[in-house]
Amino acid sequence: MDKPFLAKLRRIDPYVPGEQPQSQNIIKLNANENPYPPAPGVQAALRAFDASSLALYPDANGKALKTALANRFSVKPTQVFLGNGSDDVLALAFQSFFCSGEPILYPDITYSFYPVWCDLFRIPYETVPLDENFCVRLRDYDKPNGGVVLPNPNAPTGRALPLDAIEDLLQHNQDCVVIIDEAYVDFGAASAVPLLSKYENLLVVQTMSKSRSLAGLRIGYALGSETLIATLEAVKNSYNSYTMDAVALAAGEAAVKDETYFQQTCRKVAATRDRAADALRALGFSVSPSLANFLFVTHPQKKAADIFAYLREQGIFIRYFKLPRIDNHLRITVGTDEQMDKLIDALRAYL
Amino acid sequence: MDKPFLAKLRRIDPYVPGEQPQSQNIIKLNANENPYPPAPGVQAALRAFDASSLALYPDANGKALKTALANRFSVKPTQVFLGNGSDDVLALAFQSFFCSGEPILYPDITYSFYPVWCDLFRIPYETVPLDENFCVRLRDYDKPNGGVVLPNPNAPTGRALPLDAIEDLLQHNQDCVVIIDEAYVDFGAASAVPLLSKYENLLVVQTMSKSRSLAGLRIGYALGSETLIATLEAVKNSYNSYTMDAVALAAGEAAVKDETYFQQTCRKVAATRDRAADALRALGFSVSPSLANFLFVTHPQKKAADIFAYLREQGIFIRYFKLPRIDNHLRITVGTDEQMDKLIDALRAYL
Repeated sequence: MDKPFLAKLRRIDPYVPGEQPQSQNIIKLNANENPYPPAPGVQAALRAFDASSLALYPDANGKALKTALANRFSVKPTQVFLGNGSDDVLALAFQSFFCSGEPILYPDITYSFYPVWCDLFRIPYETVPLDENFCVRLRDYDKPNGGVVLPNPNAPTGRALPLDAIEDLLQHNQDCVVIIDEAYVDFGAASAVPLLSKYENLLVVQTMSKSRSLAGLRIGYALGSETLIATLEAVKNSYNSYTMDAVALAAGEAAVKDETYFQQTCRKVAATRDRAADALRALGFSVSPSLANFLFVTHPQKKAADIFAYLREQGIFIRYFKLPRIDNHLRITVGTDEQMDKLIDALRAYL
Repeated sequence: MDKPFLAKLRRIDPYVPGEQPQSQNIIKLNANENPYPPAPGVQAALRAFDASSLALYPDANGKALKTALANRFSVKPTQVFLGNGSDDVLALAFQSFFCSGEPILYPDITYSFYPVWCDLFRIPYETVPLDENFCVRLRDYDKPNGGVVLPNPNAPTGRALPLDAIEDLLQHNQDCVVIIDEAYVDFGAASAVPLLSKYENLLVVQTMSKSRSLAGLRIGYALGSETLIATLEAVKNSYNSYTMDAVALAAGEAAVKDETYFQQTCRKVAATRDRAADALRALGFSVSPSLANFLFVTHPQKKAADIFAYLREQGIFIRYFKLPRIDNHLRITVGTDEQMDKLIDALRAYL
């Protein structure tokens, strides 16, 4: 059968999302999810939500959530952009800010969606190698470019740059937009938000998926100058004026307003991370210094792929990337103390 | 101050969403929202939702909602695509299916987002004039093209084509993807879904915003051949693997499963529409035959812009488009009987 319409379809290599095992008995340390529930106000917001109001469109501007975020970060509501998870925000930012035709720069080992968006929006890019310890070499970013994207902490390494290093990067890159992807910043790294008042070309992207335990609700946001935010709004409104639904807006607002719970949860995850890192080192693992909610490890005697397969058989799911330079490493999400103890026990038995 | 980064930003004319008045005392007939609440199961789903599950990512594939929709429409789950409102689905479909460089075709009077997406994705297009009664002239679509988009019923006219006309269009356009945008189909028009088994190049797009009273939740979907749906999934996954949040998935499923409530609500809106159309005709208005949840009207003596402004002063919001051919028309969303009575009373007083 002749199907000429097929020639008009977009040809794209499908991105394959990570495994989401359905069984209840597994220990899921493969998607950097938070092991603790969201703030109690989120459940209360869901219970109190009046379904009849859903017949109307949501506030296209998300005013209440933007105001809550603006208060939390001491910026104006017009400096806040909302999207369906930080992937949505980052994709729009790539499309909106990297239009010069010059290659953008980001690390060779980093979030796997960056090259996907570059291909999707036909943005040229150049990857900048991390050093042998997976550290960013700042001076490598001192060259003409169409933009810079830096996750801080980086993923999957977990390594973070201090605030003065981020400012150094901005000082040397004022002719382009610099995106700092702070998906994991709340577990101990320094946010670049205080630099927003000095650098109009800085966009800070964060998410409620990790530190606020709301991966299931898809809430990401960007903080930046009014110029950058207005550009993001214009591009968003060209796709879809109402990206955020009314329930997510209400639940996200409840999460942002509970600072105490947020701080406690982040501290618990960080403490478990540091304890698990010590236990892994005691088993002979080399563990990259992490300020994120995951650990990036390698073992001098055992192959990462074999450890990954063994743990999977034990019902413990972690992440293995078959990629250059890191194909003997494993990324382990920080779970509860109990989950990490089971992981360590399983690894001890294996070694 | 010199700001070279500005030259790298995307230049775009911002789409300005319609007015969303905040006062409680107004009668809102301007956004084609449903005057009735969603099915009772939606409120129950929100109340029962376990917030702790939000710490995990949602099902990227939306299996439960796809299955419910597949059962409702007698197609396979792999023939269902989900998105954040039908705008999201339509934008992805434009990007995915109109890649040939040939101009796509759609009516000159139609949904205002179509040219916006063409500009965004650099898709050439040609608008096809409706006849003087705002009817589609099918034979005008019998020419080489990169794709066809037809809303049925059309907006803002409310006029619908019967199923045999849609099939005629498909028979003459088998070399491109044909999108039938059925945002308003449930209020009385015939859906093209039964044609899916015959035409692999047909994509039917629907939304839960209108007939299922869920504008606030942002749920749209497309039904099509597995080939078309797989292409949409690949493009979606390149942006953002998790577009639908877990709460919207659960609430949408509850809405789809209550067929009785759905049918009752659609019948009530259709009955009010037909009653209001008669009353408007009795006041001298010319009313286009509508199978949607809105009426498209003009008055031989009074200017549409003046009627619009007068009603606004009375706290009744309808829609006026200052566009060629329709700048003396008004689009009035069908509300409750009580709301429509107030509208008719206000118009009677004005005339």
